Amino acid sequence: MPPLHDIAHVGHVEIRTPVPAESLEFFTRYLGLTENGSDGDSVFLRAWDDYENVTIKLTAHATSGIGRTTFRATSPEALQRRVAQIEAAGRGVGWQDGDPGYGPTYVFTDPDGHELGLYYESAWYRPPAELRPALKNQAQANPARGVSVRRLDHVNYLGVELEPNRDYLRDTLGALVTEQIVLDDGSTAGSWTTFTNKGYDVVYTRDRTGTAGRLHHIAFATDTREDILRAADIALEQGVFIETGPHKHAIQQTFFLYVYEPGGNRVELCNAGARLVLAPDWQPIDWTEEERAKGQAWGLKTIASFHTHGTPPVEDPATPGAT
Amino acid sequence: MPPLHDIAHVGHVEIRTPVPAESLEFFTRYLGLTENGSDGDSVFLRAWDDYENVTIKLTAHATSGIGRTTFRATSPEALQRRVAQIEAAGRGVGWQDGDPGYGPTYVFTDPDGHELGLYYESAWYRPPAELRPALKNQAQANPARGVSVRRLDHVNYLGVELEPNRDYLRDTLGALVTEQIVLDDGSTAGSWTTFTNKGYDVVYTRDRTGTAGRLHHIAFATDTREDILRAADIALEQGVFIETGPHKHAIQQTFFLYVYEPGGNRVELCNAGARLVLAPDWQPIDWTEEERAKGQAWGLKTIASFHTHGTPPVEDPATPGAT
Amino acid sequence: MPPLHDIAHVGHVEIRTPVPAESLEFFTRYLGLTENGSDGDSVFLRAWDDYENVTIKLTAHATSGIGRTTFRATSPEALQRRVAQIEAAGRGVGWQDGDPGYGPTYVFTDPDGHELGLYYESAWYRPPAELRPALKNQAQANPARGVSVRRLDHVNYLGVELEPNRDYLRDTLGALVTEQIVLDDGSTAGSWTTFTNKGYDVVYTRDRTGTAGRLHHIAFATDTREDILRAADIALEQGVFIETGPHKHAIQQTFFLYVYEPGGNRVELCNAGARLVLAPDWQPIDWTEEERAKGQAWGLKTIASFHTHGTPPVEDPATPGAT
Amino acid sequence: MPPLHDIAHVGHVEIRTPVPAESLEFFTRYLGLTENGSDGDSVFLRAWDDYENVTIKLTAHATSGIGRTTFRATSPEALQRRVAQIEAAGRGVGWQDGDPGYGPTYVFTDPDGHELGLYYESAWYRPPAELRPALKNQAQANPARGVSVRRLDHVNYLGVELEPNRDYLRDTLGALVTEQIVLDDGSTAGSWTTFTNKGYDVVYTRDRTGTAGRLHHIAFATDTREDILRAADIALEQGVFIETGPHKHAIQQTFFLYVYEPGGNRVELCNAGARLVLAPDWQPIDWTEEERAKGQAWGLKTIASFHTHGTPPVEDPATPGAT
Repeated sequence: MPPLHDIAHVGHVEIRTPVPAESLEFFTRYLGLTENGSDGDSVFLRAWDDYENVTIKLTAHATSGIGRTTFRATSPEALQRRVAQIEAAGRGVGWQDGDPGYGPTYVFTDPDGHELGLYYESAWYRPPAELRPALKNQAQANPARGVSVRRLDHVNYLGVELEPNRDYLRDTLGALVTEQIVLDDGSTAGSWTTFTNKGYDVVYTRDRTGTAGRLHHIAFATDTREDILRAADIALEQGVFIETGPHKHAIQQTFFLYVYEPGGNRVELCNAGARLVLAPDWQPIDWTEEERAKGQAWGLKTIASFHTHGTPPVEDPATPGAT
Repeated sequence: MPPLHDIAHVGHVEIRTPVPAESLEFFTRYLGLTENGSDGDSVFLRAWDDYENVTIKLTAHATSGIGRTTFRATSPEALQRRVAQIEAAGRGVGWQDGDPGYGPTYVFTDPDGHELGLYYESAWYRPPAELRPALKNQAQANPARGVSVRRLDHVNYLGVELEPNRDYLRDTLGALVTEQIVLDDGSTAGSWTTFTNKGYDVVYTRDRTGTAGRLHHIAFATDTREDILRAADIALEQGVFIETGPHKHAIQQTFFLYVYEPGGNRVELCNAGARLVLAPDWQPIDWTEEERAKGQAWGLKTIASFHTHGTPPVEDPATPGAT
Repeated sequence: MPPLHDIAHVGHVEIRTPVPAESLEFFTRYLGLTENGSDGDSVFLRAWDDYENVTIKLTAHATSGIGRTTFRATSPEALQRRVAQIEAAGRGVGWQDGDPGYGPTYVFTDPDGHELGLYYESAWYRPPAELRPALKNQAQANPARGVSVRRLDHVNYLGVELEPNRDYLRDTLGALVTEQIVLDDGSTAGSWTTFTNKGYDVVYTRDRTGTAGRLHHIAFATDTREDILRAADIALEQGVFIETGPHKHAIQQTFFLYVYEPGGNRVELCNAGARLVLAPDWQPIDWTEEERAKGQAWGLKTIASFHTHGTPPVEDPATPGAT
Repeated sequence: MPPLHDIAHVGHVEIRTPVPAESLEFFTRYLGLTENGSDGDSVFLRAWDDYENVTIKLTAHATSGIGRTTFRATSPEALQRRVAQIEAAGRGVGWQDGDPGYGPTYVFTDPDGHELGLYYESAWYRPPAELRPALKNQAQANPARGVSVRRLDHVNYLGVELEPNRDYLRDTLGALVTEQIVLDDGSTAGSWTTFTNKGYDVVYTRDRTGTAGRLHHIAFATDTREDILRAADIALEQGVFIETGPHKHAIQQTFFLYVYEPGGNRVELCNAGARLVLAPDWQPIDWTEEERAKGQAWGLKTIASFHTHGTPPVEDPATPGAT
């Protein structure tokens, strides 16, 4: 039986940066996000198609990395139902006030220690006059600045062990596992899970350094593959570091570009075309080591830093100097 | 409280044509669908990204128009639950064998008389060797022939009265109403409803001829807007009649092209970019007569035939000669 | 025998506006041009891929319309050769200093009275540090602001009579006539002429008001059709008036969008794909009235204002109120 | 002083293959070329936008590699003028009958020994009824099959020494050198030259094996970058070998995809956007070893086989086994 549809979508994500001014410049000038208030060391930023108030909470911090990721429940009942399951799993932290524009948020962690939050109440974003969209079925005017990303697409955590995190998302929150990397020894090195009709909302990739709670990347969606090519052109012109791409993933077939924001966090620009996961009886697609060795869809080899760079940086015993 | 998520997606659609050979040429050479068997007067056709066996059942018939539209339930329990509601609403016809590859199908009608079917059991499509895809997370090889549409996107019925059909979909099947046209007299002239994270799966538009059970159009999704422009180029080259477009709808912001297949049925090619409806508390966007008078998103006026052409053709008392 | 290749390309164009501040906003924020100096009532603007200093000279004026259009000769000898022919044709005005960055310019007129200029000496643009491009084979950094057009593409004049202007360009400057509209009465209503491998650099369209020296539009090139769709999205969002499009011209097959800048001048965004005119024995394609009645490539009817709106505005005796 | 404009464009190219049936399948099914006659061991193929009769002459042969490349002169006088210069340079072979549809062709070689041909007379292609285009300004109907390339774009030869070949093209045929790779020792490792407003028509890259007369690749133009991404998708699906890309060249900024046809010859799909070389005083852009070490525009490292694979294959003394 398919899971109850209790989680509507990923809400917003807190990103930490040791160079807040440079990171803010990246998120606003390169990605084209819009500032929407601030609180202490944090600036709230939003993509133009986000119906809620906040897409990214950018926080000045000693290191890079990810803070809390929130998820919106589909109803107050769904929220209560899932909080009960989280508490039963022994991973609850407790209720806290949400960020401005958000109601009570239940804070908890995944087995790897990433901080998560669950809420239902959310005030829809109301744009000021100068950001009012031309079409009333759109949250905010598109700023046509830089890449001008449409919305947050997914979060990819690093995890010491994959299986506990994947199972926790599936069993406690009702996520559907859509694709996986299963190594020859039977262990899982990557899992793609979804709460929606998108191919994935949350990804776990194995952290080779054995460090808990780190981030591989966050991703923003654009409307076309051409937007991703344009994003590469703009990155080149603005001096944004391109790690790899543009190319097409074999897994999920997403067209991608990976860049680093100045704080060191990896950011993906992605486009899935019209691909959706609609089947209620979708079975996980398992990719073998041999299949993964072929590289990405059109043959690009996975870049080495993809396996070593995560945030915050740590010393990799297997690869000294790698972060 | 949001509706239970009982309907997974639109399944497949039967399209009737008085010129079956010409229509088959259109669906295979122009749209790029793949034949997948036949049964009596019907040929089964499929889009390359459809995980099920059939996307379109093309049936030779005295006239054009739409036959049965099927919907897949999310589970056996969801199927039973919805069948009970349909029967309670008094619109049930009864259980029938499904098309090849599909399990038992409960047949019923909407208030306007369109034939609908609900099922859960579905055999996943298994491509023959020559249609095996290069990537295992894809249903079939992309034939790269003509437009090469990815999947069915939505069905747009004509209805004598909008409200009963909209309410029936919402109350009996659990559809979410995302956008509407509300006339100055308070009546609804169009309603867009969804079972998924797509902006819409089923649309009703008012039939000005007052005839029940007709079709406005069926629509296929492409991955990019550029694919739609290419579809217009190919239509021009292959002599396929273009009714209007390419342009962008104000409602739902879909990029579109409308053509007629040789049997007279209207077919839309459409692309929504990365736009999704993710909010569980989405409220219907109501468009007024004044707003609609502005035309489509970039100013194209709605073509007259859009209000008069439906299938099968009928004599329009208000517009003699219109079909 | 093909003409000597004496004219390299259109240089830059002076555009007049009665609302200079609003027009400047349009050219910089919407089109994404970069300011590059000023002189009296004029602001110099440039597209990022222009190797010369000026693409548009925007001049405050009592009315809208076009000032001088310049052309660059392929060599000092070519310049002298063409000036001699212009003088022989009796249409010379004389040598003047060029705009900043340009050498001596020979000023003359076409038979319709549009002011033209011919020069060879031109100082290549040297960007300041903040506009230095990432790739050294590019004139300037792409600002990624608004449409961010690549370069000027062509100028479309209105003319009282077409033939004298077309013949003048062909015989005096060596233009190649690539396509034409030839009416049933044998007269020419439009002519597309080129100095390059582009399908056209200069167009003349008949002025139905019988007024000399007016402008139909100037056009800027983008790299893709998707850029034109984006330009329509941005126009909608920024309140820029869209006259017609996006669509594809039957003549020359150019993908287009027409907007008005706030001063009233029509501006086209255009993309020709990889189409070039390479044949040295290219013969003019003549389009008949019947063929033109079919509308644009995909069936869009030519909008009425396309035949009536020119700048500066005049009273149209045939269509009172039209401009 | 700019060169006289005596060469209009590259005409057609003979490609040799040891597996003619497989190569024909590649050129027709994958690239979407159209057959247009045959002669002995050769099949004539054409791209849909080629105004002449032949784009590729595909010839069964003991090995892969390139046969004759032809160039069209801009006039009979230009033809005579250039033949005289070729003869004076001592590289003439003599007049021969052209391929079907082409007039007398003067055959000669470049210093590296590649066979070249020069002609003026050319019968414009007249499509049969089933290939007649919808728009009269187009040579042939677009088949919408596979990549459906628009036209030949350029030829990239390998050369033992670059300078003699570059100088020969410049001095004898009037080519303009637009970009070059100049090594630290002052020698030239690559040169891009043009006869048109395209950035390049003929390229020479140094052959590390020291073998004369080989081919690096031929290239076909598509209208958009999205077409190149589609070409990669189709290559994956049809089992066409992708060597590298899609990505963007730093040199010339061309968006590219490199594949091998079954005979072993490298084929590029390329798109330059709206980039043209219009300046009559364009100076060669010289790229240093340090600059080239940065890889392609967005950082992709040049693949090793790009320096070793040419056709026909030879044993590389520096890289045993490389071809």
